[in-house]
Amino acid sequence: MPAPVDLALLHFPVLDKNGQRVTTAVTNIDIHDLARSARTYGIRRFFVVTPVEVLRALARRIIEHWETGFGSTYNPNRKDALSIVRLAPDLDGAILDIEKETGQRPRLVVTSARPAPGAVSYAAYREELARLEQPQLLILGTGWGLAPEILERADLRLAPIEGAGTYNHLSVRAAGAVILDRLLGAS
Amino acid sequence: MPAPVDLALLHFPVLDKNGQRVTTAVTNIDIHDLARSARTYGIRRFFVVTPVEVLRALARRIIEHWETGFGSTYNPNRKDALSIVRLAPDLDGAILDIEKETGQRPRLVVTSARPAPGAVSYAAYREELARLEQPQLLILGTGWGLAPEILERADLRLAPIEGAGTYNHLSVRAAGAVILDRLLGAS
Repeated sequence: MPAPVDLALLHFPVLDKNGQRVTTAVTNIDIHDLARSARTYGIRRFFVVTPVEVLRALARRIIEHWETGFGSTYNPNRKDALSIVRLAPDLDGAILDIEKETGQRPRLVVTSARPAPGAVSYAAYREELARLEQPQLLILGTGWGLAPEILERADLRLAPIEGAGTYNHLSVRAAGAVILDRLLGAS
Repeated sequence: MPAPVDLALLHFPVLDKNGQRVTTAVTNIDIHDLARSARTYGIRRFFVVTPVEVLRALARRIIEHWETGFGSTYNPNRKDALSIVRLAPDLDGAILDIEKETGQRPRLVVTSARPAPGAVSYAAYREELARLEQPQLLILGTGWGLAPEILERADLRLAPIEGAGTYNHLSVRAAGAVILDRLLGAS
């Protein structure tokens, strides 16, 4: 059986445009778009990670609206997508959750728009995924990307997504969809 | 030289969840996300298409904020992405614009989440693109997708994006990014 792949969207620690460590706001659109993409590509757990308790409460309200509230009958597809969303205060919370359910510590996989030595291509990692059994946790950063301590902690770093030139400023919603498609899309 | 590929996001005529023909609202996030994705994959013209004049005026204000207003110095990358955005009242307006600049009528290419006979795979169309010189116009629909008259008018229909199962409800922002990556991403 191929490795289960989970997804985490980090709102801390991430960088702002000046390279400062910040906490970004949780947004409705990120949760919806990434949940729909994750659900489409067979992801079973999508962690929205923020240390800010009121933002986790806000995210919980959004999810409940679509899971059990008005939205659940208005748009059942949305309910289906949001059923995979979980909240965690930090990356370790997400890791622990996966470990509890699978019995294994997940391999941490980061993505970054910046090139780095040792980064692995999507094709190579896709091939590896089919052979692995260890759970994998794909970590996406908001703002201007994941802080160095998260990148350093990763077991694997994926190469930047290359488009057609040097401009490479995909939104996290677009980048997340492209990454999932490259790794898990029907070829 | 490979065919120039342009992108159009239609807000009319599209369907709502009950299959009724509607005009959807232009949203800030669609313009930004798709402009950034389009710019990343080398698209030169991204048409935001709506018959509603006040919504074109709203879109124009958003673009100007980032092109010449406060946003242009706050975030120059965003200015760069939004420089490819154009407004058109309908699909024919976009077609005419391309024809005026390239001297050729663009081939109309539609995408839909619903399967259809004769739909072409991404791999086949990607290969064809490298050999073609005629401009290509990729048409995305908002809401629950493009209305039948647009699908029927198309010269080519791409196959639905397949994930890992039967759930397939990507946002137009996610679907647009995946389509551009499949057709134009560095392989």
